[in-house]
Amino acid sequence: MKTRAAVAFEAKKPLEIVELDLEGPKAGEVLVEIMATGICHTDAYTLDGLDSEGLFPSVLGHEGAGVVREVGAGVTSVVPGDHVIPLYTPECRQCKSCLSGKTNLCTAIRATQGKGLMPDGTTRFSYKGQPIFHYMGCSTFSNFTVLPEIAVAKIRPDAPFDTSCYVGCGVTTGVGAVVNTAKVEPGATVVVFGLGGIGLNVIQGAKLAGAHHIIGVDINPDREEWGRRFGMTAFVSPKDVGDVVQHLIAMTDGGADYTFDCTGNTTVMRQALEACHRGWGESIIIGVAEAGKEIATRPFQLVTGRVWKGTAFGGARGRTDTPKIVDWYMDGLIEIDPMITHRLTLDEINKGFDLMHAGESIRSVVIY
Amino acid sequence: MKTRAAVAFEAKKPLEIVELDLEGPKAGEVLVEIMATGICHTDAYTLDGLDSEGLFPSVLGHEGAGVVREVGAGVTSVVPGDHVIPLYTPECRQCKSCLSGKTNLCTAIRATQGKGLMPDGTTRFSYKGQPIFHYMGCSTFSNFTVLPEIAVAKIRPDAPFDTSCYVGCGVTTGVGAVVNTAKVEPGATVVVFGLGGIGLNVIQGAKLAGAHHIIGVDINPDREEWGRRFGMTAFVSPKDVGDVVQHLIAMTDGGADYTFDCTGNTTVMRQALEACHRGWGESIIIGVAEAGKEIATRPFQLVTGRVWKGTAFGGARGRTDTPKIVDWYMDGLIEIDPMITHRLTLDEINKGFDLMHAGESIRSVVIY
Repeated sequence: MKTRAAVAFEAKKPLEIVELDLEGPKAGEVLVEIMATGICHTDAYTLDGLDSEGLFPSVLGHEGAGVVREVGAGVTSVVPGDHVIPLYTPECRQCKSCLSGKTNLCTAIRATQGKGLMPDGTTRFSYKGQPIFHYMGCSTFSNFTVLPEIAVAKIRPDAPFDTSCYVGCGVTTGVGAVVNTAKVEPGATVVVFGLGGIGLNVIQGAKLAGAHHIIGVDINPDREEWGRRFGMTAFVSPKDVGDVVQHLIAMTDGGADYTFDCTGNTTVMRQALEACHRGWGESIIIGVAEAGKEIATRPFQLVTGRVWKGTAFGGARGRTDTPKIVDWYMDGLIEIDPMITHRLTLDEINKGFDLMHAGESIRSVVIY
Repeated sequence: MKTRAAVAFEAKKPLEIVELDLEGPKAGEVLVEIMATGICHTDAYTLDGLDSEGLFPSVLGHEGAGVVREVGAGVTSVVPGDHVIPLYTPECRQCKSCLSGKTNLCTAIRATQGKGLMPDGTTRFSYKGQPIFHYMGCSTFSNFTVLPEIAVAKIRPDAPFDTSCYVGCGVTTGVGAVVNTAKVEPGATVVVFGLGGIGLNVIQGAKLAGAHHIIGVDINPDREEWGRRFGMTAFVSPKDVGDVVQHLIAMTDGGADYTFDCTGNTTVMRQALEACHRGWGESIIIGVAEAGKEIATRPFQLVTGRVWKGTAFGGARGRTDTPKIVDWYMDGLIEIDPMITHRLTLDEINKGFDLMHAGESIRSVVIY
C-alpha cells in the first residue's frame, strides 16, 4: 500500500513529505492508521544529527495515536478498529526484563528496533525501491505505519487522538517519572528543573501524587505561568539567585524529597542531585544528555543518603500502564489539552520543529 | 579522673600513649569504660592527614565496646553496668532525620561532633591543661570516654567485647548496607568490589539475605580464600580479565542485581555502577573516597534503570539496629571471630595501623 509520510532523508535537513510504499503487517504485526502525532525533542535530536546512532533515511515520530486497520497472523490482543498508541518501549510480558517486575524496559525487540528494523530484520517502508528505516519502533510521521503487536497499547475509543497521542511519550514520561520511578508520596517536596513539556507533566504528576511543595526551576521566566497552571507552588529563576543549589536547600528546609531533571543538561543534573535532602532525597534524570556528556558528583553526596536514578518512558509498562494514563486524562486526573499549543497538518511538520526550537510551543501535534 | 589513651597529637605521626584528664559526664552524657576497640581505615585516614576536617590533638577510635560506669543528670536509657557500643551515628529519635523513618543519619549533635566537641561545645579530654578533641563522637582509643546518651547502644551483656566492638563500625557498615540500604532479596546476584573487612561483611550480609550468586572482586588474590570463607561464590581478579565491567556483565547474564563498592576508589565506584543490570541494578557506595575525588558516569546508565546509592553505618539506626546485629552475631546468623586477626594492647596500637596499611590484617583489636 501507499502512505504519505514526512521522511528524514538525511540529518540536518528539513523533512520531506512524500508518498512511501508500505508493506502490510507480517505475523505478529499490526497496521495502524496514525491519526495524530506529537513532535518531540527526541525527534529533533535525531534529525539534528546529535544522536550518534541515528539512521537515515528514516520516518521519524514516536508519539502517536491511531486506529488498527489490519493485523498479521497470530495477533490476538488487538483487532481492526481498536484505538492504539504506538510504543517505543514495548511490553512483551515474556522477556527477563518484563518478568522481573522491576523495570519497564522490555528487551524483546531491542536489537532490531535500534537498527531501525522490524523484529524480522527488515523494514516495511520503501521509497522508489529504497528501504526507509523505522524510528524508535514507531515512525508516527507516516499516516500509516506497521508495528509489532507488543508495541501497541489499546486505549479507550472515546479519547481524542490529537491529545492522547501526547501520552505516547511526553505525558507518560513526566507523570510516570513521578508515580512509577520516584513514587512521590503525599506531602512531599518536589523540585522540577526545566519547565518544558516534560517538566510540566512532572509538575502535574507531583500534584496528582499529593506533593505539598512543587518548585519549578527554569531560566525562561515565561515558564512560571505555565508551571503554576499545572500545580507548581513556587518558581526559581537560576539567574536571579546566587548558588541555585544552596537557594533550593534553604527554600526546602534542607533539600527536596524528590528532584527531577527535565533539561538534559549534565550540570543541571548535578544540581538536581545536590538539591536533594541529606538522608533520603532522590533525584531522577529524565532528560537525554548530549552524546559523550557525563554526570559527576562527590560520592559523599550519595554516602549521606541521596539517591541518583533515571527513568525512561516514565517507568511505565507500555501496554499495561499507558492505557491507564489515558484513563486518568479522560477522567480529569491530569490535563493535556492546554499543553497542545499548536495543531498542524503533515505538510506543516517542519514548522512544528521550528516552533519547538524557538521555545514557542509546549507541544505541536500533527493531525492527519 | 585519669584515663590512659592513645593520642594523635598531630597528623602523620604515631599515636602517643599518655595519661589524660577526663571530666565526668555532664547532663545527658555517660562515662564508658572501653574494653576493646577496633582499628579502622577511617582512623588511619584521619591520622594520615587525608581528612581535610581532621582535628588535632585528638583521641581517635570509633569502633568500641565497653561498660557504662557513670551517667550524668537526666540519663534514662542506660545505667552503670550496662554493656554498650559507642555510636558515631547517634540516634536521638527526635530530629527531622530520625523522625523521617527514611534515614539513620541523626542530625541532633552533628555540628558539635564534627568539631570534635561534646554537644555543649566543650571537650572532656585534656592533657596538661590543653584540651584534646573528641573524634567521631566516640574516641575509643581511650580506656575511658564520655559520650552523649543518644550515642550509646545498649547490647546484651554476654557478648564478648573483643568481637562485638567490630559491630560499632565494620560489621554493621557491611551487613547493614546489604539488609538496610540495598535490601537484597533471596536469589539475588551480588557483586562486591574490595574484600577488606567491609567487603567480607557485605559478603556475609548477602549470604544472610539469601543471595544466590555472590561475586567478589579484588586485586589481591589472597582475598579469594577470605571471601569464600564468608559465602562468596565466585572470585574475579581484575588483573586477570580484560574489561572488568564487561566480564562481570557476562558472568551475571546482563549485570548484577546489586553491587557494592568497598574500596573508596572512584574509578571502581563507576565500575560497580556499570556492572549493574540494566533496568533495575542498584550500586551502593560504602567506601570513603579521597577528598576532592568525584564519581562520574554517562546519564544513560541511570536512564536505563540503574540506581546509584550510598550508605553510612550500613543505614543502621544506632540504638535500634546495632544491638540487633550483636544478637545476630551471638545467635550465629553472622560471624565475627575469624575476622579479628590480631589482638593488641593499647601500647601496641601503632602496630595495628602498620598491619592494616600492609594489608596483613582483616581487623586488629586493641584490648584494654
